[in-house]
Amino acid sequence: MAIGPDELCDLTPIEGVRIGAANAKIKRPEGDDLIVFELSPDCEVAAVFTRNQFCAAPVQVAREHLRDGMAKGHVRYLIVNTGNANAGTGDDGLAAAYQMCETLSDQRERVMPFSTGVIGERLAIEKIMDAAPEALASMAPDNWARAARGILTTDTRPKGSSRQVQLGEELITITGISKGSGMICPNMATMLAYVACDARVSPEALQLLLNESTARTFNRITVDGDTSTNDACVLVATGVKGEEPLHPDHADWAVFAEAVEGVFADLAKAIVLDGEGATKFITVQVEEAATAAEALDVAYTVAHSPLVKTAFFASDPNWGRILAAVGRARFDASHGNGSLDLRAVRIDLNDVCIVSNGGRNADYTEAAGQAVMAEAYITIRIRLGRGTCSDRVWTTDLSYDYVKINAEYRS
Amino acid sequence: MAIGPDELCDLTPIEGVRIGAANAKIKRPEGDDLIVFELSPDCEVAAVFTRNQFCAAPVQVAREHLRDGMAKGHVRYLIVNTGNANAGTGDDGLAAAYQMCETLSDQRERVMPFSTGVIGERLAIEKIMDAAPEALASMAPDNWARAARGILTTDTRPKGSSRQVQLGEELITITGISKGSGMICPNMATMLAYVACDARVSPEALQLLLNESTARTFNRITVDGDTSTNDACVLVATGVKGEEPLHPDHADWAVFAEAVEGVFADLAKAIVLDGEGATKFITVQVEEAATAAEALDVAYTVAHSPLVKTAFFASDPNWGRILAAVGRARFDASHGNGSLDLRAVRIDLNDVCIVSNGGRNADYTEAAGQAVMAEAYITIRIRLGRGTCSDRVWTTDLSYDYVKINAEYRS
Repeated sequence: MAIGPDELCDLTPIEGVRIGAANAKIKRPEGDDLIVFELSPDCEVAAVFTRNQFCAAPVQVAREHLRDGMAKGHVRYLIVNTGNANAGTGDDGLAAAYQMCETLSDQRERVMPFSTGVIGERLAIEKIMDAAPEALASMAPDNWARAARGILTTDTRPKGSSRQVQLGEELITITGISKGSGMICPNMATMLAYVACDARVSPEALQLLLNESTARTFNRITVDGDTSTNDACVLVATGVKGEEPLHPDHADWAVFAEAVEGVFADLAKAIVLDGEGATKFITVQVEEAATAAEALDVAYTVAHSPLVKTAFFASDPNWGRILAAVGRARFDASHGNGSLDLRAVRIDLNDVCIVSNGGRNADYTEAAGQAVMAEAYITIRIRLGRGTCSDRVWTTDLSYDYVKINAEYRS
Repeated sequence: MAIGPDELCDLTPIEGVRIGAANAKIKRPEGDDLIVFELSPDCEVAAVFTRNQFCAAPVQVAREHLRDGMAKGHVRYLIVNTGNANAGTGDDGLAAAYQMCETLSDQRERVMPFSTGVIGERLAIEKIMDAAPEALASMAPDNWARAARGILTTDTRPKGSSRQVQLGEELITITGISKGSGMICPNMATMLAYVACDARVSPEALQLLLNESTARTFNRITVDGDTSTNDACVLVATGVKGEEPLHPDHADWAVFAEAVEGVFADLAKAIVLDGEGATKFITVQVEEAATAAEALDVAYTVAHSPLVKTAFFASDPNWGRILAAVGRARFDASHGNGSLDLRAVRIDLNDVCIVSNGGRNADYTEAAGQAVMAEAYITIRIRLGRGTCSDRVWTTDLSYDYVKINAEYRS
């Protein structure tokens, strides 16, 4: 199951990035499962990674090489395999992650490796070594759609986005792909996302842009509350367009940053739309919170509630479950002794007010509730009446298929 | 679905407590759905309630009456209805909760009301008023089993426990019942539980005993992480046995307290065993944590992970999901900069070590993993290698039936 249209949009190539793919037969007998990005020598690269303590071997190596690469010059390759996460694999896993890099360059520190798939099984590195030459031979600038398909695991559809923005004389293109469907509750990154643009951007500004865009997009989605061991998000600026590097004080920065964040938002939403077993796309919008942390906690408490999620799956306007989830969130203790003024709380589903004045809204009708719950895109807007902070997360419902997919994933 | 034997054990009456029941037809056309406990004038009563901000009207009233009652004398009645939670019902709900009390006594502050069932619908108080005389007429000391059945909602079986302990000359009996199956992640209480003993206990000691026993039992279970709006747990001491009131400095206190906590543990485990859709009883035991909070957070992070829960439902030893859940818990920042030494972590499923030295245990075999996952009772023992604190929670797996039950609950 998935929500919304199925087709992948056109993905405009980015000058300075070439992509190759091959079938290494790591798990799937046919179709690409090994993707290589080749970056021109002028590329600036920024990345964010999972904060899971048990981060996978490739995450450790990619983080190390990015650090080294920024000092020594530039990262030249990203290599991605699906079918095996190379996580929880100890020293052998670390050795395999280094070997992945060595298949592409004698200078392994110029390569960032990424893996996604089942956790805790040995990565068949020899299959990757065998398939790497084929991937390198297939290099082309217009392989973004092929890469979008090649990095998938339990996803049911490829995810990509392209946007263009005019900065002075230059038409800047931003293209990205992402994957992810379950174990989705990114913390400083998402499952896997690769975004490139052809603008010239200073390295500090690129990392800042990545951090800020991620915070508002990939770090605001959840399917099941489980943060992966392998999350990573990479932003590349090939520097082909523009003379002066872009940075936050540049006149064009806001327009450029908005376009990049737009691509991030497209990719993050695509992950939720394709969330495991998803039948609904739910925006949890919290307003009038006392603090930013409180707004986010209320949003995630509602977004993670299995009872709220199953009610949405059933299209049942069981709004009491939303109210109960709001009530168990953590409220900032320095505002109203941490206790909520129930009469000040208002909750709407799209344009239907369900809760006001401490209970069911007087004008609420079951028919109106049922009509809104039948929609595929629903915004839960929660106004707390405690302050001026707000936040928003995107999530899905919880269906039979979520259980089915995850009860059968390894078999 | 439910785990373990189905029969209700013998529930020994408690002198000083009589119980009546009736069918008020609030939701179910036949069978008791209204229960009344009558307490003798010598009873001491202690209670803990949900910390959900949207606590139900009966919780507000019960809390108020307990406070009043302790000052003025004693609570004489507990009245419980199922089929409607009287939560999220605003001022009308509050009025209905008071009316429930008034059906039993002109002094409404001597009555504590409790409701459980669907949230956000008007409580048909007139049905309760009509049925109350029948409940009062059926009063008998040996109606515990009938009450255990009468308070159920989505539960598939009644839950009760009786224990006896010899204190000097006196044989003390403790009997309790509980209900709960979904929306289970109690915070300072559980869904509903009523425990009585015939010992004489000082009021302060009774509240202390309730708090401590709850902390280690009802507050350490989770089915779906959703804290109810109606959780309440009541402990009554009828004072029939013993001369001096028991208190923590009394020579018999430890033996008595252990017996009471034993009944609480039986009732809390019974809720998990009957958790919505449950096919497995899972104990998450965390040891060697740096702080108590850290131990509890790791335990709940694992216990709430949908991916861990679906793997248990599938009897799939997908231990990477356990490792990923441990890795995303909150670790105390003042110990090791909040970062886990992965090589010090050890995870066992019953007697099978699955993780050691930062990855899959060297001696682990898939056959051993599969054998242990096929069992109905599984302990996940997680040793963190960071300190000396430990904690433990009880939970269930996540099955198709959980989704089915919660997608269909209101219809």
